[in-house]
Amino acid sequence: MFLGQVIGTLVSPVRIPILERETLLLVHPVTPAGRRSGPTRVAIDRAQAGVGDRVLVLDEGNGARQIFGDPQGAVKTVIVGVVDYVDTHEGRVYDHRERGEATR
Amino acid sequence: MFLGQVIGTLVSPVRIPILERETLLLVHPVTPAGRRSGPTRVAIDRAQAGVGDRVLVLDEGNGARQIFGDPQGAVKTVIVGVVDYVDTHEGRVYDHRERGEATR
Amino acid sequence: MFLGQVIGTLVSPVRIPILERETLLLVHPVTPAGRRSGPTRVAIDRAQAGVGDRVLVLDEGNGARQIFGDPQGAVKTVIVGVVDYVDTHEGRVYDHRERGEATR
Amino acid sequence: MFLGQVIGTLVSPVRIPILERETLLLVHPVTPAGRRSGPTRVAIDRAQAGVGDRVLVLDEGNGARQIFGDPQGAVKTVIVGVVDYVDTHEGRVYDHRERGEATR
Amino acid sequence: MFLGQVIGTLVSPVRIPILERETLLLVHPVTPAGRRSGPTRVAIDRAQAGVGDRVLVLDEGNGARQIFGDPQGAVKTVIVGVVDYVDTHEGRVYDHRERGEATR
Repeated sequence: MFLGQVIGTLVSPVRIPILERETLLLVHPVTPAGRRSGPTRVAIDRAQAGVGDRVLVLDEGNGARQIFGDPQGAVKTVIVGVVDYVDTHEGRVYDHRERGEATR
Repeated sequence: MFLGQVIGTLVSPVRIPILERETLLLVHPVTPAGRRSGPTRVAIDRAQAGVGDRVLVLDEGNGARQIFGDPQGAVKTVIVGVVDYVDTHEGRVYDHRERGEATR
Repeated sequence: MFLGQVIGTLVSPVRIPILERETLLLVHPVTPAGRRSGPTRVAIDRAQAGVGDRVLVLDEGNGARQIFGDPQGAVKTVIVGVVDYVDTHEGRVYDHRERGEATR
Repeated sequence: MFLGQVIGTLVSPVRIPILERETLLLVHPVTPAGRRSGPTRVAIDRAQAGVGDRVLVLDEGNGARQIFGDPQGAVKTVIVGVVDYVDTHEGRVYDHRERGEATR
Repeated sequence: MFLGQVIGTLVSPVRIPILERETLLLVHPVTPAGRRSGPTRVAIDRAQAGVGDRVLVLDEGNGARQIFGDPQGAVKTVIVGVVDYVDTHEGRVYDHRERGEATR
């Protein structure tokens, strides 16, 4: 799993039934302080996330298929939660409620 | 899954039956703005993609095998859709229709 | 598996039952000398680890599910042990007991 | 799957029966133009590849095991084809026949 | 699989039975010439490797579990062989016998 930031949405006429019903979001892995720390991924949204949200992302195929209740599903990267807050030894470095609603 | 850009084609006398029937495309992972963000992959085309297209790529073996309907298939990376457009907080950063047809 | 350093905690109203009962920790992969060597991961804590601890992390879905005794669990990254010490050809480069108790 | 370049061979008294019967080659992932684009891998050769060859590499365990016809085999990275040529929007950037036979 | 260099050992009171019986080694992926080429991994030693040895590492969970003869084992990264020598187009770039016995 990784901590991500939703940076965009993607529309594609995907021909796989299980993907056609889903919202596809572009996600950057980020450090606790919000700096990008890996290549962009495309994730299926299962947490009503929006652009700007900090999210928890599961990136393993078998686990992702189980979330969908479909052992045949061709899915791998799934947003499983919007993050409320992140604490480090420097204190609270991210708090969802302080973001306001502008970017959702 | 990742957002990719098709950058080339590859021809190889592969001896695995399931791969012999497929078009192999070279794909770069890209950021929403189109900058390369990871190492080149070789993907099987299941979306009639062409060089220059922005595509959605599934890179997990079990999911890929299910797309092919063959639990024994030795496949991992599959192009599952040509992307129509990508939106970020900066607006629409990619639109397939504005590319014209020159590169397909 | 990789050697990690716990750098923070994360709270998210995750809707997957198996994750709701768990503590989620942010972990950096580190070199033996403690330098960060890869992107941040979110791990489930199975070793009573705290911020600042050096830990052993298992990052493979099937293995992680077996630790949880649940073949249906959507888990991938698990902290399986707090590290006592690390030895290289330069001698002992990390010793948990010398850290004191301040950060646990 | 990725595009690779064979850069060497490796000899090791591996105690796993399925690996003892195989040639182990060192492979660099490369861009279409031949620049290295990722860490070196050790691959089992199933395509009579030699040092200097551009190859197609499958790097997924379940798929690799199916190539070997052995569901118990501990294999992951397999060279499945020597590449004949690579085309990009800049034209043919690699052609196996122009390499001559010097490096095989 | 990858070519690695053993750089240290790690001691951790891991609570997973299969790991408690094993030696855990820290390994750097390296190029044929011995330069580090990826993040440090923690591997289970199945080849009597020591600090300084060049080794062959298998990093895939299902394959690793089969080596251990335990489909339930939570293992992923395993040292399967100590490397005798590595040849590239520049000749023999590594020879285990020339290292002497000092570091084992």
